[in-house]
Amino acid sequence: MNKYIKEAINLSKRFLKNRKYGPFGACVVKNGKIIGRGSNSVVKNNDPTAHAEIVAIRNACKKIKSYDLSECELYTSCYPCPMCMSAIIWANIKMVYYGNTKKDAANIGFKDDFIYEYIEKLASGKSNSKVLKLKSLNRTEAIRVFKTFAKQKNKIIY
Amino acid sequence: MNKYIKEAINLSKRFLKNRKYGPFGACVVKNGKIIGRGSNSVVKNNDPTAHAEIVAIRNACKKIKSYDLSECELYTSCYPCPMCMSAIIWANIKMVYYGNTKKDAANIGFKDDFIYEYIEKLASGKSNSKVLKLKSLNRTEAIRVFKTFAKQKNKIIY
Repeated sequence: MNKYIKEAINLSKRFLKNRKYGPFGACVVKNGKIIGRGSNSVVKNNDPTAHAEIVAIRNACKKIKSYDLSECELYTSCYPCPMCMSAIIWANIKMVYYGNTKKDAANIGFKDDFIYEYIEKLASGKSNSKVLKLKSLNRTEAIRVFKTFAKQKNKIIY
Repeated sequence: MNKYIKEAINLSKRFLKNRKYGPFGACVVKNGKIIGRGSNSVVKNNDPTAHAEIVAIRNACKKIKSYDLSECELYTSCYPCPMCMSAIIWANIKMVYYGNTKKDAANIGFKDDFIYEYIEKLASGKSNSKVLKLKSLNRTEAIRVFKTFAKQKNKIIY
């Protein structure tokens, strides 16, 4: 058994000791070394963004003092939800290994397919507005800040 | 001008004082009161997940000691990226007001369209594998944890 996915699976077991953890675990690996670990801590930490992958990415970034995990791989006990998938891409990780599938997660009650569906349909304007409504407001004022930013020298784009 | 979007836009200006902030701001509103604020702190905090919306959501959750923002609205200076869009949905927020558009962000160098495109094409298997590769590994071992979790009584599904 792959030792990194084994670690991710071990991290998914924390709910056995503390019921406030969710059954998901992940770790970030750089040059064969685990540099960040995470368990789903949504309920534990009152943080809806604290999925295992996001916690692992945050910890890895803290460890190497960078927001860029270009040379890293992520191992996760379950196929990432769209929030984590996007976070993985923002972190410049290029390779993900996962244990359970999306369907396995749905079978135990965790359904993120509706978020995938919402995002898939956004471009066509056919997303379910009961999930989330989006409305444009005061763009004229907002865009002034962008124009100011654009004029700055040596700005950091990431 | 709407006072909440004004606050979000103000929060997008922090880069003027500290260049490590990105030009994005957001706030979470509950019953007319701002309960969480955020500026893009990716570079500032070495955290690729620290987009303005995510920071605002985490602060709001900390404030009300809950992972559930069902009765809240989010105001953001720019249309959310797929990571933030998903985080907003996970937090059970149902209404988002935004200032700048995705295109406005792309025009000053912030391009998250490739992540939207990646996710839109995932279902069909046509996502760009240069962005991110995904590989199944040791599902047999991973699913044992899910089965153990499924057997637990009074488990928390969110």
